[in-house]
Amino acid sequence: MKCRRCREPAVIEVRRHNAGFCRDCFLHHCREQVRKTIDDFDMIGRGDRVLIAVSGGKDSLALWDILLDLDIDASGLYLGLGIGDYSDSSGTYARGFAARRHAPLLEVDLPADVGFDIPSGAARARRVPCSACGLSKRHLFNQAALDGDFDVVATGHNLDDEAAVLFGNVLRWSEEYLARQLPVLSASDGFVRKVKPLVRLGERETAAYCVLRGIDYIVEECPMAAGNKHLGYKEALNLVEDGSPGTKQAFYFGFLDRARARFVDGDQAKANLGPCARCGAPTTGDVCAFCRLVERATT
Amino acid sequence: MKCRRCREPAVIEVRRHNAGFCRDCFLHHCREQVRKTIDDFDMIGRGDRVLIAVSGGKDSLALWDILLDLDIDASGLYLGLGIGDYSDSSGTYARGFAARRHAPLLEVDLPADVGFDIPSGAARARRVPCSACGLSKRHLFNQAALDGDFDVVATGHNLDDEAAVLFGNVLRWSEEYLARQLPVLSASDGFVRKVKPLVRLGERETAAYCVLRGIDYIVEECPMAAGNKHLGYKEALNLVEDGSPGTKQAFYFGFLDRARARFVDGDQAKANLGPCARCGAPTTGDVCAFCRLVERATT
Repeated sequence: MKCRRCREPAVIEVRRHNAGFCRDCFLHHCREQVRKTIDDFDMIGRGDRVLIAVSGGKDSLALWDILLDLDIDASGLYLGLGIGDYSDSSGTYARGFAARRHAPLLEVDLPADVGFDIPSGAARARRVPCSACGLSKRHLFNQAALDGDFDVVATGHNLDDEAAVLFGNVLRWSEEYLARQLPVLSASDGFVRKVKPLVRLGERETAAYCVLRGIDYIVEECPMAAGNKHLGYKEALNLVEDGSPGTKQAFYFGFLDRARARFVDGDQAKANLGPCARCGAPTTGDVCAFCRLVERATT
Repeated sequence: MKCRRCREPAVIEVRRHNAGFCRDCFLHHCREQVRKTIDDFDMIGRGDRVLIAVSGGKDSLALWDILLDLDIDASGLYLGLGIGDYSDSSGTYARGFAARRHAPLLEVDLPADVGFDIPSGAARARRVPCSACGLSKRHLFNQAALDGDFDVVATGHNLDDEAAVLFGNVLRWSEEYLARQLPVLSASDGFVRKVKPLVRLGERETAAYCVLRGIDYIVEECPMAAGNKHLGYKEALNLVEDGSPGTKQAFYFGFLDRARARFVDGDQAKANLGPCARCGAPTTGDVCAFCRLVERATT
């Protein structure tokens, strides 16, 4: 197989594009996919300061690398979740990348700075670990962006992630989640803009990107995630994708083009937001969900 | 495990209902699910004459058996598709059931009465066999119902079938198909009412129904269907259902409750229907899709 772009021997095939690429053209392809995504969805404006949610995995490090190559002002934030060896080694990869690219890395440590780790905090709060973790990340990334005067929080969600989330939302017909499932969420009072610039790249491509760029990343999946529904949705979609490459991309982008707006019934969720009595973050109640988690996870 | 209804030993477990049933209570359960479906969707009125699309498989024979037990005037129509041994033996099962229940069975033979069989006709018309077959069935069942003065055509599509069709429509976000994916389609000029009374029963349940009732049915899948996309969608959904029993039912009925109407943009499809120049069936063109298929499949 030859590279689609330069006709030299290909090192990777991307079946859903029915194309092969050599190393350099594949890296170019990945950057162009991200550039196109950022442009199409007005994700990042000139001069915007971007804070990347960095886990030390392939997606967030590929994202950081590409944004830097696109001359975007991109800092990282690594959140220590206290998940044993997994957290120790993911932090090492995040710091290694930041040092190599001379890029600023902020750090927040959940056990030291907030007072609980995900495994025992979720257990004390009687929450599914992935749910407690997601809530903590959303809150702390937003808070760090506000504190550090960033315009945008960027996350490394790729096409496989977003297609699997969409599949779960569709299986339950969660109208509110469907209405909000976009690769860009605008800033609003107390929330910075959130963007997902990797939605045109599959996880096999972000992994290949890191390998071909010589970026070291943590290969293991988070041990808390094993057996969760999200991974089951990925597995089911992979079965269909294997038989019909391109299914996931058509599913996700078809949703954005032709279906999402049908689920928007007016902006109920943001209607009654006020500041959390404890931390000031926007919430529909007196105390925000994160502060309630902290209370239950630390007592 | 005990029967949910009578506490005798159960012979079958239905995981999505978190229930076991003894033989008699299971048969009762299946009948009640069908009765409820018919009532909820106003499928069949008092005195309606129903024509069942009978393939000789578990679904259509279970449907016929249940409708007869519910004292509904239900005849069968068996369509010979000319798919070799498969058609020969499916016809035998259909005739056997009709004789045993003293129920009227009409027959149309595609090769003898129309002039082509599915395998070679689809090849000549350069159509996927399942697509040529579906088109032929829809046309001929509707025509036979009109000719025989039936009020309703009932098909044996079960929950697994409908969830898989929905999954395919959602993966492609086929707005028109989503708008029309209902277990009942009203009669309109040239079309009799179409109903799917088995949408509350999974295929494992219709198979168990037949076994426990002593109904012989053709067990093999149609050989033309092997490897088609529909079976791939079923496999993917089964993977999710295995981990979370009830997913398919929530997916399908959640769609009907909260999503389908969002895809109805006015009745474009039926807007410009006129009679087919050859057979008189409603069509948007001069000649209906079935007559075009016949022309290409027989020349």
